Amino acid sequence: MTLIEQMTQLARQAKAASRELARLETSEKDRALRAMADALEAAGPELQAANAKDLEVGRSLALSAAMLDRLALDPERIAAMAAGLREVAALPDPVGRVLDDRTRPNGLRLQKIAVPLGVVVIIYESRPNVTADAASLCFKTGNATILRGGKEALNSNQLIARTMIEAGRSALGDRFPVHAVQVVPTTDREAIPALLSLTQYVDLCMPRGGEGLIRAVTACSKVPVIKHYKGVCHVFVDREADLPMAVEILLDSKAQRPSACNAAETLLVDRPVAARFLPEAAARLGAKKVELRCDASSLALLEPLASAGSVRLVASSDADYFNEYNDYVLNVRVVDGLQAAVDHIHHYGSAHSDTIVTADEPTARRFLADVDSAAVYWNASTRFTDGAEFGLGAEIGISTDKLHARGPMGLEELCSYKWNGTGTGQVRK
Amino acid sequence: MTLIEQMTQLARQAKAASRELARLETSEKDRALRAMADALEAAGPELQAANAKDLEVGRSLALSAAMLDRLALDPERIAAMAAGLREVAALPDPVGRVLDDRTRPNGLRLQKIAVPLGVVVIIYESRPNVTADAASLCFKTGNATILRGGKEALNSNQLIARTMIEAGRSALGDRFPVHAVQVVPTTDREAIPALLSLTQYVDLCMPRGGEGLIRAVTACSKVPVIKHYKGVCHVFVDREADLPMAVEILLDSKAQRPSACNAAETLLVDRPVAARFLPEAAARLGAKKVELRCDASSLALLEPLASAGSVRLVASSDADYFNEYNDYVLNVRVVDGLQAAVDHIHHYGSAHSDTIVTADEPTARRFLADVDSAAVYWNASTRFTDGAEFGLGAEIGISTDKLHARGPMGLEELCSYKWNGTGTGQVRK
Repeated sequence: MTLIEQMTQLARQAKAASRELARLETSEKDRALRAMADALEAAGPELQAANAKDLEVGRSLALSAAMLDRLALDPERIAAMAAGLREVAALPDPVGRVLDDRTRPNGLRLQKIAVPLGVVVIIYESRPNVTADAASLCFKTGNATILRGGKEALNSNQLIARTMIEAGRSALGDRFPVHAVQVVPTTDREAIPALLSLTQYVDLCMPRGGEGLIRAVTACSKVPVIKHYKGVCHVFVDREADLPMAVEILLDSKAQRPSACNAAETLLVDRPVAARFLPEAAARLGAKKVELRCDASSLALLEPLASAGSVRLVASSDADYFNEYNDYVLNVRVVDGLQAAVDHIHHYGSAHSDTIVTADEPTARRFLADVDSAAVYWNASTRFTDGAEFGLGAEIGISTDKLHARGPMGLEELCSYKWNGTGTGQVRK
Repeated sequence: MTLIEQMTQLARQAKAASRELARLETSEKDRALRAMADALEAAGPELQAANAKDLEVGRSLALSAAMLDRLALDPERIAAMAAGLREVAALPDPVGRVLDDRTRPNGLRLQKIAVPLGVVVIIYESRPNVTADAASLCFKTGNATILRGGKEALNSNQLIARTMIEAGRSALGDRFPVHAVQVVPTTDREAIPALLSLTQYVDLCMPRGGEGLIRAVTACSKVPVIKHYKGVCHVFVDREADLPMAVEILLDSKAQRPSACNAAETLLVDRPVAARFLPEAAARLGAKKVELRCDASSLALLEPLASAGSVRLVASSDADYFNEYNDYVLNVRVVDGLQAAVDHIHHYGSAHSDTIVTADEPTARRFLADVDSAAVYWNASTRFTDGAEFGLGAEIGISTDKLHARGPMGLEELCSYKWNGTGTGQVRK
């Protein structure tokens, strides 16, 4: 069987499974999810054995210690996967919600109903827990999943999927389609473009990982992709800001977890408050070992501090403002007012999460309205852009796209809708 | 300037205009739309002169009489364009609607707000009235438009756009961005892939026209495309159907306007009622000059009628069932029950509009749930899939995609959303 034949078979099986999944009752799906959670816990030793093989592959590929750590499954992580599945079981089912209900003058009743998307392909990197996590969210929403994890995680991913399938089968019998969750069985890189050419079977692709992975997937995909390339998020400290509040928001946005996509990469400070704000902010950031990449104005203000050795200062380049550091590094730029801040964000940003700190409501309202990003905050950390923080219950990813889903994607965003029209013989003529 | 530079300039101007459009008040947009309507009417003679040049081009390209007719602008059509703009002005503005409003336990208030998509590219064929129609719907929703009509309509399209821009400018002055509506100024075919590579500026492409155009656009586009390739719609007459009602629904679905995408192409009739239903249905269809492409079972039932010369019968091929005829032709197939009908629709259909005629509610409910199409009807014509019929006020197109919009797309579907978070200094740590 050629690669494209193999991928076509996988995708066709997924589409057939999706038709059966769409018919499951919420209670059936939840029962299956709880059975999967139990089964993953029971399979602990086998999962660790499969994972040990993957770790060996990882070491032979000379993966970094950080990557090997992400790849590793221990009893605690297996328990966390199982707990995650039980949480998904406890969430409300968005499928079947009536989104609109209108009766036309001719008596035709039109109902807009949430339905599963169908077949979702998830492409991700090392962490095998994503397998259980993504598959469970897709299953809860009646979608069939095709999973493609890192090549070094294939044994773990396959065993997780098989364990989930077998548990679903024992919980629901024939009502559970065995192709509800499938792992791409090859590590061939060409499998991805092959799979993502199958627009007749695949409804959505969600890549999760670094910008390189996401760009490669987007470039080759013929099916719709929802994604964010990167999170270049901004904190703008306006001239009317409560400066102590601004320091706390900046510190949280940058340093609470710098590796997160919603962490800030750039501080924009309004010129009238720069001299008052920057020294205190820099001292606090310096204490967290944050390096500052400064424009000329901020450098001039901060150099006295740097000479005291309290914070590392570097002159920023234009390219720095486009950068997602994922690290303890922050660009600092002095700007002349709101419009300059907004223009900077539109030019250099990634339309992910941006915040203004100000006590002036009209300024805040303009920032909230004008900044064209998935999440725009006033007097709050950028770090809140997250499914759990938003109260969405779960998160399959974050989108900086403008179609279908923007910002954190929960279960509702894994649905499409259809129109059901019920009549009594209505015709147009 | 190279083609890609020219398209980049167009797209960049559109993006800048979209930022200004997003700030307009509803009353400003409506005032501009009414001024545009007046200006189009006032420009009647000039529009007809520009259109005369296009008709000459069309004749030199040996366009068919039907295509020349679609290209032509007469005073009636110009008045209809103006009336269309006034109708759009009267519709509610979906921008700014609050789609969700939640306050988290930490006091952070999150509002999900409808916002314009940004820059929308519309690619269409001959009819110049689409220029005013599409541009007005996009303008009402705060989107900048880049229009690419048929090469034979360039003079008309450019003058329509220019007239709208000038009217907008006199109504709103500097508040009206002159690049709100732009027509691609070249007929070079390579302009389309160039424009649709500019993902940093263009948010959505909507091709409108024949399947060939839509496939070509989709194949080359790097920006999201919403479309329907074709409408292969089905009427399923169940064994429990009210047969006289079924005849009326079938006739309307097929013959009320066969060129529409929501017209039926295939009749599926349940075997137990085939012998009773088909002769009457065929006679009525025959009276409308509908040719029937029949499977073996239906042919056997209908041949006695055909020998009477009342209806043209042809044996169907497998390929016929995939076909959108846009004409007085209907496939006829006898199936064994609901599941066979659903399977046929999933295999051969285009997920556009399908209807079941039955008096049995459980059967109808299963059809409504199982058929994976944008619009699924029970005891109603397929012809209702239409923005006006749905009461959406206006229609920019119909989608058979599952992301963002499915079925008729009105003004709401020309919006994205953003999350606005307002706090009092909330941080995550």
